[in-house]
Amino acid sequence: MEDLKRLCIHTATTKPWSVEIALANYARAGVAGITLWRDALEGRDPAAVGRLARDSGLQVISLCRGGFFPSPDGDARRRAIEDNLAAIGEAEALGAPLIVLVPGSDPGQSLEDSRDQIAEGISAVAGRARDAGVQLAIEPLHPMYADAKSAVNTMKSANDMCRDLNLDNVGVAVDVYHIWWDPEAFAEIERCGASGRLLAFHVCDWRSPTEHFLLDRGLPGEGCIEVPRFRKAVEKAGFQGFIEVEVFSTRHWSSDQTRYLEKIIRAYREFV
Amino acid sequence: MEDLKRLCIHTATTKPWSVEIALANYARAGVAGITLWRDALEGRDPAAVGRLARDSGLQVISLCRGGFFPSPDGDARRRAIEDNLAAIGEAEALGAPLIVLVPGSDPGQSLEDSRDQIAEGISAVAGRARDAGVQLAIEPLHPMYADAKSAVNTMKSANDMCRDLNLDNVGVAVDVYHIWWDPEAFAEIERCGASGRLLAFHVCDWRSPTEHFLLDRGLPGEGCIEVPRFRKAVEKAGFQGFIEVEVFSTRHWSSDQTRYLEKIIRAYREFV
Repeated sequence: MEDLKRLCIHTATTKPWSVEIALANYARAGVAGITLWRDALEGRDPAAVGRLARDSGLQVISLCRGGFFPSPDGDARRRAIEDNLAAIGEAEALGAPLIVLVPGSDPGQSLEDSRDQIAEGISAVAGRARDAGVQLAIEPLHPMYADAKSAVNTMKSANDMCRDLNLDNVGVAVDVYHIWWDPEAFAEIERCGASGRLLAFHVCDWRSPTEHFLLDRGLPGEGCIEVPRFRKAVEKAGFQGFIEVEVFSTRHWSSDQTRYLEKIIRAYREFV
Repeated sequence: MEDLKRLCIHTATTKPWSVEIALANYARAGVAGITLWRDALEGRDPAAVGRLARDSGLQVISLCRGGFFPSPDGDARRRAIEDNLAAIGEAEALGAPLIVLVPGSDPGQSLEDSRDQIAEGISAVAGRARDAGVQLAIEPLHPMYADAKSAVNTMKSANDMCRDLNLDNVGVAVDVYHIWWDPEAFAEIERCGASGRLLAFHVCDWRSPTEHFLLDRGLPGEGCIEVPRFRKAVEKAGFQGFIEVEVFSTRHWSSDQTRYLEKIIRAYREFV
């Protein structure tokens, strides 16, 4: 399945499946890569899961997710850093070369404070990540998550933070869901690629109407995002890595997951 | 009630009230301005409503809303223009000096096409508005509405469109709900004021968590937006007009509206 050799699926996309079932089914379908969510690793030895993935013929693309650094409470910020160091340990054991960072935000303080604390948090863990051979990708999240999930809401904001941090293992994860509306997105994708910091590319679609803030994403083709245009843009910017299907959808999760995996592959072939 | 002399309330904020009841209660409470939503005018003579407002001691601040220009269908675009011309007639009769434009978007075409059609639509009606003594304010809407309500999602995008249109009666409505997350918002508010195009200022708050895409806004103080900081920014940019409380909230609408009006006034005094 030559045409699936850059397809990666997130365990969260087929959330009803355990990681073992997901690995077996992805491999059988010819999917080439997997991104592990930390909840899929619970109660398991990450090193063993990594071996199982590779033995199944799948490449481990990234671990989702670190981040969530900001808080007005210093103890909470220290705990967040500890948790990110733990994630780096898991990524190392798993053999994942990348951790996706959901930056975090806090409704009890200004966005500027949250952004400062994100930068501080990344600085505090980047050295350990480098020692572990792990890159960190800041994922700008849609502005509808600015209150609690991310104070970094545009490609420009993520690029600016990378420039200011100036760390060789810190870059950006581009997810079409979060940036598709932004008139500056294409220029900032180009800038991101030119700086060598475009580390990951996530696809899904924006359903119109969308009925839930978190769990109503669509597969590519089910919404209004020009996914192929974004794929061309990241590739023009030099990205040649995996294309990761990351869909949170109670609608899809409640369907037969084997059929759903077929739909994912069809969507990847036709609409990415 | 000297301190309420710049307070305007949108009829949609107290949606359960008819426009007549709203006018009587706003006036009794010392509210100085009212923005009329077109649904509040249904079945009424706008000129009579305008007289009633003025006789009650209220200033008519604006009419909400025109816009919704884009569509892949040319007939639909022509109908949108007709509807905006009708709104201009209503504003003139009402004595409203301003119409707020929700630009519109369409999930069936690119955002660039929608933006082009917004600019074309505004160009097509601006002359009639000028003749009627009516200004048009482009309201950038939060990016979570980019699929169907607005392809203009940042202050920068609205400012750029105004610059390109270069029409003396077309400017921008600043609503904190839509732009609070944007790192460029303050710089673009300054730019907007400097160009003489900052025509309206709407306040409410972003509840955390927010549970509905449209109808879960908070009063100032009920969420995480730094409303006073935005008020200072628009005033520093030269804006001295009314401060309009525009809150869509099934939670507030289902409460006693007289008590709710007291809450609105308290929120205005304490958190704006």
